[in-house]
This record gives sequence, structure tokens and C-alpha cells, in this order.
Amino acid sequence: MAHLLSVSCSLNISAGSRSYSKPLNQCAISSVSLPISKTPLKRFTFEAKRSRKCRTIYMTAVSMGQEPRVQPGSGSNQTSSEASVPKKVMVIGGDGYCGWATSLHLSKKNYQVAVVDNLVRRHFDHQLGLDSLTPISSIHNRIRRWKSLTGKDIELYVGDICDFEFLSEAFTSFKPDAVVHFGEQRSAPYSMIDRSRAVFTQQNNVIGTLNVLFAIKEFGEDCHLVKLGTMGEYGTPNIDIEEGFITITHNGRTDTLPYPKQASSFYHLSKVHDSHNIAFTCKAWGIRATDLNQGVVYGVRTDETAMHEELCNRLDYDGVFGTALNRFCVQAAVDHPLTIYGKGGQTRGYLDIRDTVQCVELAIANPAQRGEFRVFNQFTEQFSVNELAALVTKAGQKLGLEVKTVSVPNPRVEAEEHYYNAKHTKLVELGLEPHLLSDSLLDSLLNFAVQYKDRVDPKQIMPSVSWRKIGAKPKTVQAKVK
Amino acid sequence: MAHLLSVSCSLNISAGSRSYSKPLNQCAISSVSLPISKTPLKRFTFEAKRSRKCRTIYMTAVSMGQEPRVQPGSGSNQTSSEASVPKKVMVIGGDGYCGWATSLHLSKKNYQVAVVDNLVRRHFDHQLGLDSLTPISSIHNRIRRWKSLTGKDIELYVGDICDFEFLSEAFTSFKPDAVVHFGEQRSAPYSMIDRSRAVFTQQNNVIGTLNVLFAIKEFGEDCHLVKLGTMGEYGTPNIDIEEGFITITHNGRTDTLPYPKQASSFYHLSKVHDSHNIAFTCKAWGIRATDLNQGVVYGVRTDETAMHEELCNRLDYDGVFGTALNRFCVQAAVDHPLTIYGKGGQTRGYLDIRDTVQCVELAIANPAQRGEFRVFNQFTEQFSVNELAALVTKAGQKLGLEVKTVSVPNPRVEAEEHYYNAKHTKLVELGLEPHLLSDSLLDSLLNFAVQYKDRVDPKQIMPSVSWRKIGAKPKTVQAKVK
Repeated sequence: MAHLLSVSCSLNISAGSRSYSKPLNQCAISSVSLPISKTPLKRFTFEAKRSRKCRTIYMTAVSMGQEPRVQPGSGSNQTSSEASVPKKVMVIGGDGYCGWATSLHLSKKNYQVAVVDNLVRRHFDHQLGLDSLTPISSIHNRIRRWKSLTGKDIELYVGDICDFEFLSEAFTSFKPDAVVHFGEQRSAPYSMIDRSRAVFTQQNNVIGTLNVLFAIKEFGEDCHLVKLGTMGEYGTPNIDIEEGFITITHNGRTDTLPYPKQASSFYHLSKVHDSHNIAFTCKAWGIRATDLNQGVVYGVRTDETAMHEELCNRLDYDGVFGTALNRFCVQAAVDHPLTIYGKGGQTRGYLDIRDTVQCVELAIANPAQRGEFRVFNQFTEQFSVNELAALVTKAGQKLGLEVKTVSVPNPRVEAEEHYYNAKHTKLVELGLEPHLLSDSLLDSLLNFAVQYKDRVDPKQIMPSVSWRKIGAKPKTVQAKVK
Repeated sequence: MAHLLSVSCSLNISAGSRSYSKPLNQCAISSVSLPISKTPLKRFTFEAKRSRKCRTIYMTAVSMGQEPRVQPGSGSNQTSSEASVPKKVMVIGGDGYCGWATSLHLSKKNYQVAVVDNLVRRHFDHQLGLDSLTPISSIHNRIRRWKSLTGKDIELYVGDICDFEFLSEAFTSFKPDAVVHFGEQRSAPYSMIDRSRAVFTQQNNVIGTLNVLFAIKEFGEDCHLVKLGTMGEYGTPNIDIEEGFITITHNGRTDTLPYPKQASSFYHLSKVHDSHNIAFTCKAWGIRATDLNQGVVYGVRTDETAMHEELCNRLDYDGVFGTALNRFCVQAAVDHPLTIYGKGGQTRGYLDIRDTVQCVELAIANPAQRGEFRVFNQFTEQFSVNELAALVTKAGQKLGLEVKTVSVPNPRVEAEEHYYNAKHTKLVELGLEPHLLSDSLLDSLLNFAVQYKDRVDPKQIMPSVSWRKIGAKPKTVQAKVK
């Protein structure tokens, strides 16, 4: 439940149905569209707090029967064996692809979860004319459905973490033991559309993370930050990639230093900046932080999102937000050649979304020490693009799909043939049991894609953003409608 | 001279004296105070261009006789031997400590110079109640005085490079062959005052530099970016510091990678972020860039700033903007103990401001190749804080000053005893002839401080910003007046 601070000059509004829409419309809500659910809202209690700038919206799913509120951490769902682990987890970006799956998984595991999200990911789709392959419900309906199925509350704070006034309210209201921070613009192509998106990406990601660090220092110094980084921070060096740090002997002396970073988009660079900022605050302020350098995530179903269609996760296949394996499966389903960028020797780390949620839980359950900046490489297997294409081709044939591949000019600037060997043992040491990419998983992903193939917009499949041609002029001044 | 683009809807205003003040006051000029000179302005021609948001102000010093304009690059001041070097240099941050000295030096060397500055450094002093030890003239009077003494024009563009509309206008108007980018918030303590200053520092520095990179890509791909970094990006590793890159052999394989960064303030971190962003654009867009990782600069006089009191450079001694050696000399002059933070074993690279201007000129005269990201460590000698204090003490005694030292609790988070050996040969290879710290320089600096000792505000000397105590609350909500 949202615990509103008592602040003078605040205006608390309790409203059913649509009566909250007027005050919201009067306010300047920065770059956030509040989705209005098509279903009746009478099962919700909305609490809107209006400060001078009016950016803070609390919403809490309340079950139909209006049960008594359960105090955080004292819930009967907590088992005794879990009594010593952090209870309250704030998931920033909890409405996104990884964030939603993680929020449900943690809620299922009896963590008390709050989703913090400005819903701007949905806004990007509107602006660019894109859509998830899978139909997804509003965050409000998702949370309500979860409650009705499991009896578990997920709190919702709709707002922008770049707005520190909002973030402060969310922090002091929810008092998290851990913050999982997915709340960043996460697409490399999006960051390379034009200058304004490049600037947005770095400003949004870097300042948002700075605000989270200040919120932890100010309101909950013991709170554990679990931050999503990316394997892309390392680039493709010609030596083995270690987990965050490398021991270097040079001119007869030795030190263990941050692993050198060579990111290759404004998005990936924003994560590099975050890592440096977080490392500093661990040292200067004693922040406890885990940087999860995640590989490319594939898959759509987790145990929790599979429970009901209203819990279904998004699946992106477009040239901006779609990532390699997911996109290939959709291409195979609609008889579109698999688009290999350049030579296809680009090798990266990959993981199943079921492992994303497992890794985050492991990081939370085994928190970093005060002052520790811990880096885990979060992936389970390495593949080249050509290897992925071959696997999808083979799996498609089993399903009777005739899968072709086509090499398209690489829109990115990256090595297309290179050495790649990245360590990823720390999460396994904590207990990660990987779901490796298998024929059955590919069958399931392909079947999923076939199931929704009528929703595919083939015009969104090809790469539309060029690393070299990005310019200063906004690309959506006169948006192309293909 | 400012070459205004012909853009529809623009309003060009030519005004003498004060008639330009009205349109300026009507406009939203983000965080910039336009200083109004106390001296008559009739020797100037102001040209103000008013777009929808009206942020762009051009001002050009025109000599009293209104001589005909000289086309860039065709000036009679150019010697034939210099015909092959870049002619037009935009100095962003050209009103600051290093920027002003550099602008004059380049102008003296027959480069055509444009100063781009939002004058926010002067604004910081107003907000924090600080002042330069030396009285400094307005940028308008400085440029006019330079013209009257040398006959050389320096163009002035007053505006914020985070405003891409302004920067575009400045770029397309001046068409620089090289951009020297000093235009960042450059104080580590300033960045550690409070959350809003930390955020300002990273946003201003990172976004400003991104905009410069986009401006180069969009309007002058061949333009050479000379960017001021800092030796503080490297931190204090237990191995030798190389110039930007280090060759690492690891598990039997070898690569040359960016030198690992361990910055220790939000300011220093902003420079790390810049370095990563610039390196990427060199690779992706073929930008030519030189990153000057500068040490701590000391001294106040250069040949050019010494020509007239209106050309005098600023000298900061306060706890926010004052750097070690300059601050010590002022402390010695006013009989204030030299303030050593902690144990005083902190070792850094230092250089004379006369070498700053020399290094920048060398970088411009020997530009990086297209696509090259070149890093020079720009300092000439290493000292520990204790060594500097001993040198100032000895020099002071020669002048009859009784110099004491005091150890104060270190407001920073940094190693106070550590290994430090940083390479700095690349600029020497290009021809740098260092001015090493000598008795005579210290005498001169001390005499300078004694000359202006009546302007010293002793209350500004002690460190006032704590790395550990920084909080989210703005520190100037109720500004302390000591």
C-alpha cells in the first residue's frame, strides 16, 4: 500500500472510476502518458498527491474485498527461512520486459514489491509506431490481475525518477531494502536515432541513476542497489572479459582495476557512465551495489507471466527494440528472412528471461556489503549471430517453416569477426541454474511467434537506424509512415 | 565577425549602448547572467538574433574606427609558414581561467578566435559569494581591450552549448577548424556541494560535449576537437599511468585498451563520461579528437594577460574553485596557515598556465587524424601536497613571510599516501618546453598574492564541501552568510 507522507500543502485525492483524470490533466506530467484502463476501475483506490509541480501519482491495487492492509515484512507469506533476507524490493522500470517478469517473480517469492515506472517505454512505441508482438495489459490491469490470482499486492508508483521530488516520495513511502533498477532507456538503436534521443538516453539514464544513489544515501543508506548494466559495456576486446575488474601487472607493479570499457552506442555508453558513478558512491558513501552486466535476453514466458494472458510479457521484434534471437523467431514465423547484420560473426552473451529473474533474486538474496561495488556478468551462453540464425533455421524446419537468412548492411559500427570470451561464474556460484537455449525452448518461442503472427508488422522488422547516419535533426519532425 | 545565418522568422537587432537590453530581458536565457559593462558600449556592435526561444546572442568587438571586416583565414596577420595549420579556433569556455589565457594566446599566434561562453562561471561566484583574487573585467571589456592593444578581433558568442540551437548557430556562423572545449563545470568540490550541483555538473558537461560532437558531425566533420580532460580521470592506481591507453597481456592474449578510470568526484566522473563518448564518436563517425588530461594548473600571468590590467586572468583561492598551489600562495600572503587535507601525501601532476596555452596550441597545430582518439597527459611535474607546502614555505620565508601549515580533516575521499607515476611525454614530443615550478615563479605568484591581499576573504579559504556529507537538499536554500 502507498504510505503517503504527511506534507503540508499536499492535496490527497481518493477517487473511483475516472474522477482523478481532471486533476491529472491540469498537471505537468513530464513525458508520461497515463494509460486509462478500459476495464472498470472500481476495484482500485487511487491516491494522487499534488505538490506544486504535481508529478507524483500513487496507485495501489486493492483486492475486491478490501482486506486489511498487511504491514511490510510482517506478512504471513514470509516463511521463517526467508526472515533474514531483504523484504521490500522497489523495481524501477517494473513495467518493462525484464522489469515486469522480475516484479512478478519477486512477488511470488514473497518479497514485498513496488513497481516504479514512468511508463515511457509504452510511450516510445506510440511515438515510433511500434508494438509488442504479444498484447500486453496496462500496468494497472496487470497488477490487479496478479492480486486476484495470488492475493499478493504490488504497489505502483507512476513517475519519473529523474524528478527527485517524485523519487523521494516513493522512497520514503515504500522504504525499500533493495532497489532493482531497470528504469533506463534500454535500446541501442533508439539512442542512435537522432541527437535528441542520444541526449535523452544519456540524460535519462545517468541522472536517473544519480538520483537513485542520492535517494539511497539520503533515505536508506543500507538499501542494496541492484543495477542493470550490460555486457555491451566491455565491447569486444581481444582478451578475456572478466567480471567488472581485471588484475594488471605493468612495469613490475600490480593492481586490480575496473575492466576497460569500450561501449558502442550512446545507450551502452550511458551504462558505462552509470557504472563509474555507482563505483564512486560505493567508495565515498558506502553504498552497497551490484552491477548486473546482462547479456541479450530472449524468451517471453516465465512461470508467473504464463499464469494469465493479462500477465503476459511484451515481446519486441522491431528494428529498434527487438533483440537478436526474439527477432529471428518472429521473422521465421512470418516467413521473413532472418536479418543478419554484416558478416554475422558478432558474438555476445545470451540468457533466458527465466534466468534474468533468477539472477536478480540471487543478487537481492545475497546482497553486496556496505561500500562494495560488485559486478556480475549475467548471461549463460555465448553465440554468434550466425550460430543463432542456424539454430532458428533448424528449429523452424522441425515446425515446417522454411527459414531463410539474408545479410543486410550492418547499421551498427562493430567488429563482425572477433575474439570473445567472457567470464560468467559469479552468479553460478551464488546458485544460478541456467536454462540453456534448447530445441524445446526454440520450439516454444517459435510457436509463440506463430501464434501471434497476425500481429506482426513486417515493415518494422528491418533495421531503420544507422550508427553512421545519425544526425542532429529530429527524426520524427516529419515521421515516416510506411 | 559574427556571420548571421539567414533564417526566416529571425529578428536581427543592431544596437549601440543599452538598447539591446530590452529584447534580452524578454527572453528566457537559461542560467546565464549577461554582465552589463559599466563602460560605454558604443565601440561595440551587438547583433542579437531572436528565435522562438531567443537564446542566441552574438557580440563582436569592432575597433573604434569600424575597419572593414577581414574574412576568416585570409587575414594579413597570417604568416606563410602558418598557412597550413588550422586558422579558426572556437574556444568554448573562453572566459574562464584556462580558456581566457588560451584565447589570447591563440589570437596572438594569429589564429582567428571565437569565444563561446555562457559566463556561468561568474554566476557561480555570485551564487556562492566568492570572487577572484584578481579583479577581472567583463568578457566584453576584455575583448575590446585586446582589440585596442593588438588590433586583433576575438568573436564572442554568449550562450549555452547545452542549447543545441545556440551551438548550431555559433558553429555555422564561425565555421571553426578546431574547437577547444573548456566549457564545463570544472570544480570537484562544486560538484559535491549537493545533489542539484552534482546533477548539474554531469548534465552540463556530458550533454554539452555530446552537443559539440553532434555539431562537428553535422556542420564540420573535419573540425578537430581539443577537449580538456583531467588527470583525475585515472585516480591513483598502483601501477604507472599511461597516456589514455594501456597494453594488457591477459591469459596469453594481448590488447591495447582504454586505461581504466577511477575518478573520485562527480566532476571528475563527468570527464570520464566525456572521454568514453568522444572515443565512440571517433570510431563511429570519424571525429578527430585530442583529449588533454590536464593536471592541476597554477600561475596567473601569461605573456598576453600581463599586457593590461583589463586582460588580467582570474585567480581562485577559495575552498570550492581554488586549486592547491594557487591557494597556498594566497594563504601565505594573508598569514593563513597552508591547509593540507589529511596526510598530504596526495600526489598529482601540475603545470604552469603558460604551459596550458602552449599545450593547447601544440594540439591544434598537430591535429589528430580523422577517426583518431588521442590522449595526452598534460602536466609537467608531479608533487605531493606536502612537497608543495614545503616549497611555498621556503619561498615565503625569502619574502619575509612566516608560513605555517595546518592539517585539516580531508573533505575528500581519496588515498592520502599512494604510488603515483604518470607518463607525460607526448606533448614534449610535439615540442612542449615546460616552465618548471621554480623559486622565481613562486616568488612571482606570492608577490601577486601579496599585491591583492586586501581582496582576500579569509572565510572562503577553508574547505566547505564534504565528499561524505553531500546530501539531496540544496545547500543554498538558506545560504550561509559567514
